[in-house]
Amino acid sequence: MFELLKTDPTSKARLGRLTSSRGAVDTPVFMPVGTQGSVKALDPRELQEMGTQIILGNTYHLHIRPGLDIIRAAGGLHRFINWTAPLLTDSGGFQVFSLAKIRKIKAHGVEFRSHLDGSPLFLGPKEAMEIQRELGSDIAMVFDECPPHDAPAKEQRLAVERTICWARECRAQPRADGQMVFGIVQGGSNAALREECARAIVALEFDGYAIGGVSVGEPEDEMMKAIEFTEPFLPAHQPRYAMGLGTPAQMVELVARGVDMFDCVLPTRIARNGTAFTARGTVSIKAGFNKADFRPIEEGCECYACRNFSRAYLRHLLNVGEILGLRMLSVHNSHLYLKVMQDIRRHLAAGTFAEFRREFVANYVPSQKVLLSRSESNDE
Amino acid sequence: MFELLKTDPTSKARLGRLTSSRGAVDTPVFMPVGTQGSVKALDPRELQEMGTQIILGNTYHLHIRPGLDIIRAAGGLHRFINWTAPLLTDSGGFQVFSLAKIRKIKAHGVEFRSHLDGSPLFLGPKEAMEIQRELGSDIAMVFDECPPHDAPAKEQRLAVERTICWARECRAQPRADGQMVFGIVQGGSNAALREECARAIVALEFDGYAIGGVSVGEPEDEMMKAIEFTEPFLPAHQPRYAMGLGTPAQMVELVARGVDMFDCVLPTRIARNGTAFTARGTVSIKAGFNKADFRPIEEGCECYACRNFSRAYLRHLLNVGEILGLRMLSVHNSHLYLKVMQDIRRHLAAGTFAEFRREFVANYVPSQKVLLSRSESNDE
Repeated sequence: MFELLKTDPTSKARLGRLTSSRGAVDTPVFMPVGTQGSVKALDPRELQEMGTQIILGNTYHLHIRPGLDIIRAAGGLHRFINWTAPLLTDSGGFQVFSLAKIRKIKAHGVEFRSHLDGSPLFLGPKEAMEIQRELGSDIAMVFDECPPHDAPAKEQRLAVERTICWARECRAQPRADGQMVFGIVQGGSNAALREECARAIVALEFDGYAIGGVSVGEPEDEMMKAIEFTEPFLPAHQPRYAMGLGTPAQMVELVARGVDMFDCVLPTRIARNGTAFTARGTVSIKAGFNKADFRPIEEGCECYACRNFSRAYLRHLLNVGEILGLRMLSVHNSHLYLKVMQDIRRHLAAGTFAEFRREFVANYVPSQKVLLSRSESNDE
Repeated sequence: MFELLKTDPTSKARLGRLTSSRGAVDTPVFMPVGTQGSVKALDPRELQEMGTQIILGNTYHLHIRPGLDIIRAAGGLHRFINWTAPLLTDSGGFQVFSLAKIRKIKAHGVEFRSHLDGSPLFLGPKEAMEIQRELGSDIAMVFDECPPHDAPAKEQRLAVERTICWARECRAQPRADGQMVFGIVQGGSNAALREECARAIVALEFDGYAIGGVSVGEPEDEMMKAIEFTEPFLPAHQPRYAMGLGTPAQMVELVARGVDMFDCVLPTRIARNGTAFTARGTVSIKAGFNKADFRPIEEGCECYACRNFSRAYLRHLLNVGEILGLRMLSVHNSHLYLKVMQDIRRHLAAGTFAEFRREFVANYVPSQKVLLSRSESNDE
């Protein structure tokens, strides 16, 4: 199902293709996040036009609303949300972290109190796989335990043990027709734990492997370490997915560390705050200095927003609270994330990735605010 | 500039074409409202796809934000908002009604206190025409005084006198290249006042005539009367515009009373409350009964929302606060308003308007809630 087309001689970067029954996904790939069955502010046509090949949905959130009965009656998640290309569903494991205040971890899973009305919801490996089977996603994720980055060593070890145990249970569950299942490696920024967890998860033989326990409040160097400590133990012929990461420059660096798949809420989240991503870093479109700037968000960008509107107009829209403003920033930011991945694939194919990487990272000025916003609760 | 193509033998309905330097507008026409330079939640492509020929902007609001200097620097309102088809600008006269608490009427205009920061803003015939000249709209409206429907007779008379006096001043102002100017008739539901005002305004020889002082809290029969009392005194060879009206069935009835042009905030406003227009009346898509209804909002509707999404999915989106929900209801409702006008034009051309009118009005069940929402402050 995964074809490794080319590896970069100067780094661990890989060009590949993941084939599902609903079409192929060229890797490295960025997957826009549709937690509640909609990539925030965007419609399916806009997503297709910007080259989206696969999107995410979330087991916990979709199970609470609209509920599995509705999605089942619709004929699965694809039909419910009218998305015909591949779909990956997160298992609800991340909510063990992001909704830490309203859950209790037990031996066979996690007891949540709904973030809406406090009603009880039990999610364990069995439940998470059953829900994802009914959602009918093309890639299901195992149910894992994701501790915060500053959890004590003992807690990190316990999380790894539970994650392995639950992965085994997930592996044994039935799946939807053609559904792939990805294992998840935990272990924080502890090299030994990462290795132990990776070896155990890989031994269970999944269709791909995710690196979890990143984007949980850790500084960038710890995040990079978590990836570096895990990657050597993942099989080369299968796809690797770094969960919930990151800024454009971080994605380039993570590709160079052997990662194939990414998802991140940043593009649409910071759009709603009036901030745009560019190849040189973020810019506040809402800021006063754009008042009379009639250039597009980013010169040369081919997204719908940049082809049609000026910074001055977008600033006005954001300023007066018109929905078109945050829509257009969501279009631009998501387009940029997808474009970075297209550029990466093009340079990998042409053998010029090293140069691209050097220039991209040198030009990109990371914003502290954006790095912090990534670490907030990532539950959109 | 206005061509009367056909008149209906069974009513006062007219088929026409209004030609501006930016293209022709087929009448009867519905004009989506872009008060602050954006038709709420929609982008220009969506508007074009649903057949929009002309949209509205608002002098008062655009003057406050982003301010005339910005729009002037952009090269006019069309270029600022990227709308290449015709544009009509309201003069700010309606804000004399809708912002009654923050303005004082003087002999030469109205002193506003900005609804944002209380800063003073003087709008009179001279100022309103100057701003509209700079905005570069294809149709500018005169600055009028719009009293509430229950204003005492003396106040209604004063408003008519001021409206005539200000119209004369507006008429004398310079205009943008190719800009048409429409006069506005006031007079409430008083037949004599309406006639007096209409005769005086028509004597000033504008390019078209609007019936104002409707959609200001009056019941439907008074609104119909206001139109009926005014229409006979408007020249047949020029376009007539009923300001801020109404439900689909009301528009059909107003066409039958000789009206050619309409604008209304209802389609996008009630969309944001989770309500959709259909040919049979309004329906709450947010309501529980749509939970597992996998039909489109309206069977047979060809809008993007109905071609792609079910009521159940839209209900879910509205329910969880996803922007795509209100976007899609805004698409559907605006599409429906434009479609009703297309149907009217088709039936006028085919000579079957009487039958269409009878059936449409019989099938349309007006919702009290929607009629009331029309009468709230119409300042989007």
